[in-house]
Amino acid sequence: MHNFFLPQVPTNQDILTASKRIAPFVHKTPILTSSYLNDISGAELYFKCENFQKAGAFKFRGAINTVSSLPEEVLASGVATHSSGNHAGALALAAKMKGIPAHIVMPKTAPQVKVNAVKGYGANVYFCEPNQKAREDKLDEVVSNTGALFIHPYNNYSIIAGQATACLELLEETQSLDYVVAPVGGGGLLSGTALSAKYFSPITKVIAAEPTGADDAFHSVRDNKVYPSVNPDTICDGLLTSLGDKTFPIICDNVSEIITANDESIITAMRLVWERMKIIIEPSSAVPLAVVLNNPEKFAGKKVGIIISGGNVELGKLPF
Amino acid sequence: MHNFFLPQVPTNQDILTASKRIAPFVHKTPILTSSYLNDISGAELYFKCENFQKAGAFKFRGAINTVSSLPEEVLASGVATHSSGNHAGALALAAKMKGIPAHIVMPKTAPQVKVNAVKGYGANVYFCEPNQKAREDKLDEVVSNTGALFIHPYNNYSIIAGQATACLELLEETQSLDYVVAPVGGGGLLSGTALSAKYFSPITKVIAAEPTGADDAFHSVRDNKVYPSVNPDTICDGLLTSLGDKTFPIICDNVSEIITANDESIITAMRLVWERMKIIIEPSSAVPLAVVLNNPEKFAGKKVGIIISGGNVELGKLPF
Repeated sequence: MHNFFLPQVPTNQDILTASKRIAPFVHKTPILTSSYLNDISGAELYFKCENFQKAGAFKFRGAINTVSSLPEEVLASGVATHSSGNHAGALALAAKMKGIPAHIVMPKTAPQVKVNAVKGYGANVYFCEPNQKAREDKLDEVVSNTGALFIHPYNNYSIIAGQATACLELLEETQSLDYVVAPVGGGGLLSGTALSAKYFSPITKVIAAEPTGADDAFHSVRDNKVYPSVNPDTICDGLLTSLGDKTFPIICDNVSEIITANDESIITAMRLVWERMKIIIEPSSAVPLAVVLNNPEKFAGKKVGIIISGGNVELGKLPF
Repeated sequence: MHNFFLPQVPTNQDILTASKRIAPFVHKTPILTSSYLNDISGAELYFKCENFQKAGAFKFRGAINTVSSLPEEVLASGVATHSSGNHAGALALAAKMKGIPAHIVMPKTAPQVKVNAVKGYGANVYFCEPNQKAREDKLDEVVSNTGALFIHPYNNYSIIAGQATACLELLEETQSLDYVVAPVGGGGLLSGTALSAKYFSPITKVIAAEPTGADDAFHSVRDNKVYPSVNPDTICDGLLTSLGDKTFPIICDNVSEIITANDESIITAMRLVWERMKIIIEPSSAVPLAVVLNNPEKFAGKKVGIIISGGNVELGKLPF
């Protein structure tokens, strides 16, 4: 099958092209600061707020970049994916904006609020049992019935180039950050972030933040082989997946360190952001701040960018 | 006793002076929009986000304007007030910034999080029984013991001039709004908002939004006499007070209408803002959006500014 996506690890030019391509569709999200959080961390923190992105998460950058870069004839039958989370809503909205069908396979246990969001963007939703095999089987069936093109949530260079634009904007609007900290699940955001830092601010080190209860990326990078994410146990519902064969090498080459944080410290960090910054972030987005607060010896006195990945939270099920 | 405060209803020059005076201390808060909320309201909504203001509410504008306008010798013994809410934190922070003592009388039932915030700004806290008489008695005692200057939360022209600067910024950054909608409790924010609209955008009508369960302002304006707020019953903890003899005439002369909304519609509006805009607003701040959504015949097709008054919420006691 022909590959319609970006065929190689995104270059600096690919990321700049993606940034220009998606500019008419995305929000250029604000970068916020908090004197209180600076005080308690001893660091100078810059929060890139992708919780304000369309569809509520950075995922829309990758989705709209990918859909916008494909030839019209490839898109005629629409796009498809399986996701219970932010990629589902992002792809559904991207398809709606492009006027093409979206077919989204969701586990039947997906939160009603996320199902409603996807349907609200006009996508066709297909339910399956909540396990990886059932998701892939149902997706194969949908793709074969509809002729839609499968858009992987992260293991895709076009997606990675799109996600990289968040860090690009962060680096353009701040000066000489010492670190950028991003959460890691499948590694789409993290690998895009690492590439943008490498190309556009080589002095800036990228650190990954991972929940202790889903630390497959930590072990994968340490042992230099991709471990699957088996029975992850964390509140961070956006970080349950394992690395892919495209994201893993980029991360190995360009991320300086992976630091884990337990759920208790993640919930504390999330609550601090809600109470002090008055913005709604999802648990996955709080892992970088938890890592910064847990490791003052590393971050105190440093300029640190933090990617707030999204703000899609079930308000009826808060951890506090 | 000599009056150290602004002696008359703020003029346009008084408001411009206040704006310049407080500029080094306040956040120039963002104005946010939401395509979803525009869709469901049929209106073009501009949210002036004072939930991002220092100490989490517009109240800091009035507090820092007042404290900054007083002669040094008057401030030597510090400032005092009674408040269970946002004025307490605002005045405590303003005093801290000016390096003077603050003495805050709080009902012993005040939420721990608000007590902690006030103490965190270095203020002296005095507890009293949770009723108006006990608050005033304790305040008299504190003022007489300390020589501190009492700063009323709203019935004070210096405070009103400070609160007016939020609407001034909103009008400076938007074009020809048809309406500005602000919540009303004691009327400090509302009277400042109405004065700014009158001076700086005369085509803009100001509408007050009031909870049905605390509709003393509605009845006061209708009958042209100030009714006390008796046993208010609403989730809007910032809007329980009655109008003052300084705010009432300004409101009568310059507010075009007071529209009430019940708590159910206020909670719905609050949840919509949390879920769709990803920002944390307190119940009192959701009353204007509830009014807009409840009255499409008035607001559809109009450009409407909404003052989001604050974001100080007990996360453990959410109404959803």
